[in-house]
Amino acid sequence: MTLAFQPPGGRDALEEGAQFTPRFDRDGLIAAIAVDAADGTVLMLAWMNAEALSLTLETGIAHYWSRSRGELWRKGDTSGQLQSVVDLRVDCDQDAVLLRVAVGGDGGACHTGRRSCFYRSVAMTADGPRLGLAPDLRR
Amino acid sequence: MTLAFQPPGGRDALEEGAQFTPRFDRDGLIAAIAVDAADGTVLMLAWMNAEALSLTLETGIAHYWSRSRGELWRKGDTSGQLQSVVDLRVDCDQDAVLLRVAVGGDGGACHTGRRSCFYRSVAMTADGPRLGLAPDLRR
Repeated sequence: MTLAFQPPGGRDALEEGAQFTPRFDRDGLIAAIAVDAADGTVLMLAWMNAEALSLTLETGIAHYWSRSRGELWRKGDTSGQLQSVVDLRVDCDQDAVLLRVAVGGDGGACHTGRRSCFYRSVAMTADGPRLGLAPDLRR
Repeated sequence: MTLAFQPPGGRDALEEGAQFTPRFDRDGLIAAIAVDAADGTVLMLAWMNAEALSLTLETGIAHYWSRSRGELWRKGDTSGQLQSVVDLRVDCDQDAVLLRVAVGGDGGACHTGRRSCFYRSVAMTADGPRLGLAPDLRR
């Protein structure tokens, strides 16, 4: 069942209130950052609609909305990389959430096989910005 | 000067190529996560347009696009909380960036006075989801 999130209030309520009133964007989505609870490594940035956010809160397992596939998605159903939510936080204006998760399977999050989706660094060169593999996040 | 980012290629080029081809959304924005390079704490989620991303790469100081104010924003100009970029990473499909930053001023990032914008945790209660201050991020 999808939780009936209350509509967002004014700035004081958003920033200092005790009510969780997520601010979904015009597509009905909110940004969700997942970090590994064990060491804080940022694993991925994904999106949740109200149903995914509800299911995440109610089951303790991270659910997302896949914008490319246009479907609800319990991460790990095929890969085994289930994300058990240790803590779910919201930012000051309640338009982003941060999940600290314990990852199942091989502990990774990226479909390319790396642990984190953020496996490349940008470096400025004479030919413009170029990418290189981050040494700590090779496959 | 705004860098002329090349248009995104196909999946292989996006995921495994060496070219940085950020995928801006239909508003011309890309999500940017800032973490403290010293300890990995997630400080904030903000947005960059091509100009903000260019300026960030060219100056080494984080620039963002404020959606609420509709303007380019060098974070820290008023607060002193300038973010010097240690490393800028991009995710697998190049629609999000991750900045590891050294923070000036008091070391914080949130306009409410907390170090991180993610200072509240969501807990499920009989009255629905409620917010509480995260113990490690009180003001």
